[in-house]
Amino acid sequence: MTQATSAADREDRVLERIDKFRRRRPRLLDDVVTLAHGAGGKSSAALVDAVFLEAFRNDELEQLGDAAALRIPSGERLAFSTDSYVVSPRRFPGGSIGHVAVHGTINDLAVSGARPQWLSAAFVIEEGFPIAELREIVADMSEAALKAGVQIVTGDTKVVGKGAADGVYICTAGLGQVPEARQLSRDLVRAGDKVLLSGTIGEHGMAVMLARGDLAIDADIASDTAPVHELVEILLAAAPSTRWMRDATRGGVGTVANELVKDAPFALILDEDRLPVQPQVLGACDMLGIDPLYVANEGKFIAVVPADESGAAVAALRAHPQGMQAAVVGEIVPNPHGIVALRTSFGGSRIVDMLVGDPLPRIC
Amino acid sequence: MTQATSAADREDRVLERIDKFRRRRPRLLDDVVTLAHGAGGKSSAALVDAVFLEAFRNDELEQLGDAAALRIPSGERLAFSTDSYVVSPRRFPGGSIGHVAVHGTINDLAVSGARPQWLSAAFVIEEGFPIAELREIVADMSEAALKAGVQIVTGDTKVVGKGAADGVYICTAGLGQVPEARQLSRDLVRAGDKVLLSGTIGEHGMAVMLARGDLAIDADIASDTAPVHELVEILLAAAPSTRWMRDATRGGVGTVANELVKDAPFALILDEDRLPVQPQVLGACDMLGIDPLYVANEGKFIAVVPADESGAAVAALRAHPQGMQAAVVGEIVPNPHGIVALRTSFGGSRIVDMLVGDPLPRIC
Repeated sequence: MTQATSAADREDRVLERIDKFRRRRPRLLDDVVTLAHGAGGKSSAALVDAVFLEAFRNDELEQLGDAAALRIPSGERLAFSTDSYVVSPRRFPGGSIGHVAVHGTINDLAVSGARPQWLSAAFVIEEGFPIAELREIVADMSEAALKAGVQIVTGDTKVVGKGAADGVYICTAGLGQVPEARQLSRDLVRAGDKVLLSGTIGEHGMAVMLARGDLAIDADIASDTAPVHELVEILLAAAPSTRWMRDATRGGVGTVANELVKDAPFALILDEDRLPVQPQVLGACDMLGIDPLYVANEGKFIAVVPADESGAAVAALRAHPQGMQAAVVGEIVPNPHGIVALRTSFGGSRIVDMLVGDPLPRIC
Repeated sequence: MTQATSAADREDRVLERIDKFRRRRPRLLDDVVTLAHGAGGKSSAALVDAVFLEAFRNDELEQLGDAAALRIPSGERLAFSTDSYVVSPRRFPGGSIGHVAVHGTINDLAVSGARPQWLSAAFVIEEGFPIAELREIVADMSEAALKAGVQIVTGDTKVVGKGAADGVYICTAGLGQVPEARQLSRDLVRAGDKVLLSGTIGEHGMAVMLARGDLAIDADIASDTAPVHELVEILLAAAPSTRWMRDATRGGVGTVANELVKDAPFALILDEDRLPVQPQVLGACDMLGIDPLYVANEGKFIAVVPADESGAAVAALRAHPQGMQAAVVGEIVPNPHGIVALRTSFGGSRIVDMLVGDPLPRIC
């Protein structure tokens, strides 16, 4: 069997698979895309599953991490990640779409264990968009990249007609190197491990929501948008056996926690009393009937560390200005498999499911 | 002087530069973004210059190639590229937005001398978009990637409200390795070099334009959307001293040729008689008063090769099914600096300027 023949065979098999994919009825209840499909919760997962994973199937993609882990022939490991940013409004207390477009992609790389180095930036701009505002957004991106020590090295601009976009959408992709010894994987998580948050939760989502101005709530809440890669390095130095990390963006900590336990032989118990939430965020969430566990963050991550490294981990994070509110917020327990539960302040406990529906569209 | 101090100094200097950028009046006549800014011609260049280059200024970006050339510490060279795809209609004779989203980014890498390996794919989807059509687009992407031997390894999905996008926009970023010995640069181009096209021009733009159906023209024109990396490898094997390549997408061959000569100590003379154009494309262009030199391609590239390798280059390209119409179409001459000229069929000659305005919006 020559190499050419087996490559052709492989191509035939995959084309056949794509052909089947085209003819198959999608495993989705919906016929059209809804806002819930973009919320990062259950519907998003269903869409990704029934459309993207089924068609693109490959080992990298099935990890479904925040970034793909690539290995180039010289042996070097790279992380590669992308996100589009459609946040509305484009400017809110604490930041802008420009900041989020840089920080979001940096953070996806960082929680994959990579040291973010290079970004690309592609813009889809609506005809009539003010050049002055575009320059402000681009200045925010440049400043965010500089402060984080990453370079924006390539880009693209497309213009669509009036009404064919809401101002501007930004897509960034990021690239970073992963130090050789670094191993982060859901598969390393064990019962007994501790679950950490790098800081308070819910600020970004609430800041954006309040900035829309259609809620009669006036609260002093600023987005937490920030790069977390420095904090990740500090954590990994203090807790070198850290198992797994994820930044808690769309869908919040509740959704990310569910992604961790999905089909896993363990459960995650969160302690409501230990969740760091700013009082003004808690107040706004209460008034709106939204659980801060599902509100997006743009500068916080969740990490699972072995119990014997958790003290050092929290101490190290708290010594950094960005990590002063870091805390152990829960633990991994053997049962029931695949469940996230919250031990409430009243001593009860409830299941924390994946986000269903979309309380907060276009948050990032 | 410690390293920390000089890093802080550098950050201060750059923040000061960004601050100046924010306060400066943009060097642009327009106050708002227009469709012409997205057409790939003169206005696009002005926008990139006055907004993106000025803010993001770094060595990689200033090359303004189709991809950034990166070097990782092990010494390996990578090319990194991104593009958004907003083509309307999404399906046209010869392909779809899915094909173009994969081929376009592969081709940007290929003409930078890279071997395309990995792609990311980010989707901005309008609420209400049919899942069935999304699956078709994704199947096209999967098929295009498979046939080209690249992997789509990471992605993202955002959903915006009804009316906040025109169906779906796709942003892909790509990554490939550049073999060590390979050197391609505008700086290597010399008077006496020959200019090649890898095939006929203008099919993609005309196919998309006719597919819109609002012109009363019926012509059998299919997009040329295709990956060119195989053909690029063939060219580089036959003409190892190839100086420079570029795929002629938005703005067409005329615009890309102008990018080559801009501020350069040479001119480029094209021979109208030698430009490969399908008769039906020429006919449609004539009827619409559009110059095929400015019409987008999605599977063709222009290359500059030394004269003594140009015969072997064309012969090698023509031996491949994708390169059968490859031809030497012009040459580099010493004067006048920075000019692209066309020797017409009638023996005259005229200046080929950069595209001004936008005859064909949302072509890719």
